Amino acid sequence: MAEDEVILLGFWASVFGIRPRIALEEKEVKYEYREELLVGNNKSPLLLQMNPIHKKIPVLIHNGKPICESLIEVEYIDEMWKDKALLLPSDPYERAQARFWADYIDKKLYDPAKKIHITKDDELEAAEKDLIEVLKMLEGVLGDKTYFGGDNFGYLDIALIGFYGWFPTYQTYFNFSIEAECPKIVGWGNRCMQRDSVAKTLPDQRKILELPKLIRQRLGIE
Amino acid sequence: MAEDEVILLGFWASVFGIRPRIALEEKEVKYEYREELLVGNNKSPLLLQMNPIHKKIPVLIHNGKPICESLIEVEYIDEMWKDKALLLPSDPYERAQARFWADYIDKKLYDPAKKIHITKDDELEAAEKDLIEVLKMLEGVLGDKTYFGGDNFGYLDIALIGFYGWFPTYQTYFNFSIEAECPKIVGWGNRCMQRDSVAKTLPDQRKILELPKLIRQRLGIE
Repeated sequence: MAEDEVILLGFWASVFGIRPRIALEEKEVKYEYREELLVGNNKSPLLLQMNPIHKKIPVLIHNGKPICESLIEVEYIDEMWKDKALLLPSDPYERAQARFWADYIDKKLYDPAKKIHITKDDELEAAEKDLIEVLKMLEGVLGDKTYFGGDNFGYLDIALIGFYGWFPTYQTYFNFSIEAECPKIVGWGNRCMQRDSVAKTLPDQRKILELPKLIRQRLGIE
Repeated sequence: MAEDEVILLGFWASVFGIRPRIALEEKEVKYEYREELLVGNNKSPLLLQMNPIHKKIPVLIHNGKPICESLIEVEYIDEMWKDKALLLPSDPYERAQARFWADYIDKKLYDPAKKIHITKDDELEAAEKDLIEVLKMLEGVLGDKTYFGGDNFGYLDIALIGFYGWFPTYQTYFNFSIEAECPKIVGWGNRCMQRDSVAKTLPDQRKILELPKLIRQRLGIE
């Protein structure tokens, strides 16, 4: 059988783009990572061809066939390469719970996490409050476990870890500390960083620290 | 082994509430359906207890444990009762495609389908245009197949069928016809209605026809 060709289209600072990357790393699947330039009209013809509906990264291309939407990609990777590192729990109820909280992250965490960087005044305050509230909720789900799934790093950890890279930006630019508000979530992030799959793919927090200033300059927000 | 206790909290006209109902019917699982009163502050204590995060129907309660979010419930039902009527395709790529389009329905179809009923003028026109565009896209996915999954009724059919009940409201109140715009989608809906699982659960289109007037009266939209 010919070797699988696996290509991943991503953007280095994306909280979504990191998800299929970590899943592929956990499975030890060989893949080619291609960075997309998302600023301006620079999306690659391959991205537009492979994800004509949303035109967004990440896109996983497996033997020429595209899979889109990060959480769907992680499930695909888990089902396609079954022989190691199962990412979703095997119990149907636990699977449903993992899917529920990953969906919660997309529906409730992403918006305030993004909004903080593109608003000011009252809206900024509301976004900060929402962000902390959602992270505290997730902290409750984590409890005292090593990972969200217990002893095994998996799907829900992968869904959340991209946000961890952005935590220092809140302290630097907005004067609140996720570590002070949600120490268990920061402890969990630190544990995740000890895994090769995360350490080698998650962007350097110092590099992310440069982004908020650029975003606010570009949008003309004081 | 004691018999499973399965309770489903729903609302008769909801495009989401119908999904786990049809899945349970397809699996021939015995369940108790409980109608929620969603108007005003009438949500049941059980709903608030079982879905404290979103406080929304549908909620599936299996032996006392809640599963929330309609598509997650359908996957749970498919995994829990494996012995008949597999709802998701078995091939990982086909599964990913089914999940992608179901997610597309939630992200792109629900908003305009709802907006039509609560806006007017330019916003109404834009919502009509979006609705038809999204349905045409789904018509392309359906092609000439019997169901979205081919010969087998399944996950993606279940994700979309709730919207079919609302199709006549567009002709009656907004003067455009889904049948004229997307005849294959209407043909598909008619085929779905020939299944017991759909026919016995999907609300009577005449009953839904009364709703848009009530909604617009309540919101004070002319």
